[in-house]
Amino acid sequence: ILDEATVCHVGVVREGTPIVTPTLCIRLGDMVVLHGSPASAMLRTAPKAEICITATLVDGYVLARSAFHHSINYRSVTVIGTPIVVEGDTKVAALDAFVDKLIPGRRQTLRPMTDKEVKATTVIGLSLDEASAKIRTGPPIDDEEDYELAIWAGVVPMTSGFGEPVDDPNAKIAVERPAHLEGLV
Amino acid sequence: ILDEATVCHVGVVREGTPIVTPTLCIRLGDMVVLHGSPASAMLRTAPKAEICITATLVDGYVLARSAFHHSINYRSVTVIGTPIVVEGDTKVAALDAFVDKLIPGRRQTLRPMTDKEVKATTVIGLSLDEASAKIRTGPPIDDEEDYELAIWAGVVPMTSGFGEPVDDPNAKIAVERPAHLEGLV
Repeated sequence: ILDEATVCHVGVVREGTPIVTPTLCIRLGDMVVLHGSPASAMLRTAPKAEICITATLVDGYVLARSAFHHSINYRSVTVIGTPIVVEGDTKVAALDAFVDKLIPGRRQTLRPMTDKEVKATTVIGLSLDEASAKIRTGPPIDDEEDYELAIWAGVVPMTSGFGEPVDDPNAKIAVERPAHLEGLV
Repeated sequence: ILDEATVCHVGVVREGTPIVTPTLCIRLGDMVVLHGSPASAMLRTAPKAEICITATLVDGYVLARSAFHHSINYRSVTVIGTPIVVEGDTKVAALDAFVDKLIPGRRQTLRPMTDKEVKATTVIGLSLDEASAKIRTGPPIDDEEDYELAIWAGVVPMTSGFGEPVDDPNAKIAVERPAHLEGLV
């Protein structure tokens, strides 16, 4: 689930109030890893307090014969714990992994990261030790007598994909679309 | 954003720990409305404590010339406050609105909700008084000197849609696919 999800939602507690923020996530071994600006309040909670990372994939609408039994097919995972700040070689590997996750093969075409950029990014990791997944699959479960009703029921799968790439309008040099885009589209 | 999002993520604080849960959301006037089982710990926080509802739409990958400036085009909204329990006619209207949001036109084809079902569902509403949206759109913003590099940059839009409906394998009566499915597919 974590490997398939692009975006997760991170919960932190700020002065007693829960705050939920969307952010990119990757999995590196047995850690979920997040990154962002050192100014991010969410990232600065590490390693001071517990956070909760939830990633959700919505797979389909479950259409039952009654409104009550309508549902969603989904897969979600929730990870709770106190994150660590990721430094050194693991930090660089994590930053590489963020680009690799979005588009495999792209990173090798970019100009290399600078030390300044690595320093200007905070990376935190949360162990998968306390993690739970919830999954709903399959057809609707209706009340037994409702199966006698002439109402269509079933599942409508949800799909996601990519549209046609849009060239940067600010480009100064005409560059052909690279092969790594084709894997996406 | 709330009207376009199917699923939101709700943050609550349980014994000092943030817990983030995915759930369906609708907007009813100036409230975000959630529903579920009366046993749901998340729903039982109302009206006792603050919650945070965040809905996020991911619109595209922003591919820059450096890893550092890669980003995501997205729209998200965060609503914070102490929810109320929704009862009476508003509760019924909210339950109707959940089905109407998933598939307009379907509710009229279902067997009516029973009082028992209405009682067996908890509905909470959170005022939009304390809400903020974050939006990123447009092309990558690269370091000035990087525009001289022969690296493709731009945006890859993300799309979502619906696949071919799957008839309920447990159906006892053959029912043609209704017109309201065609709006989705």
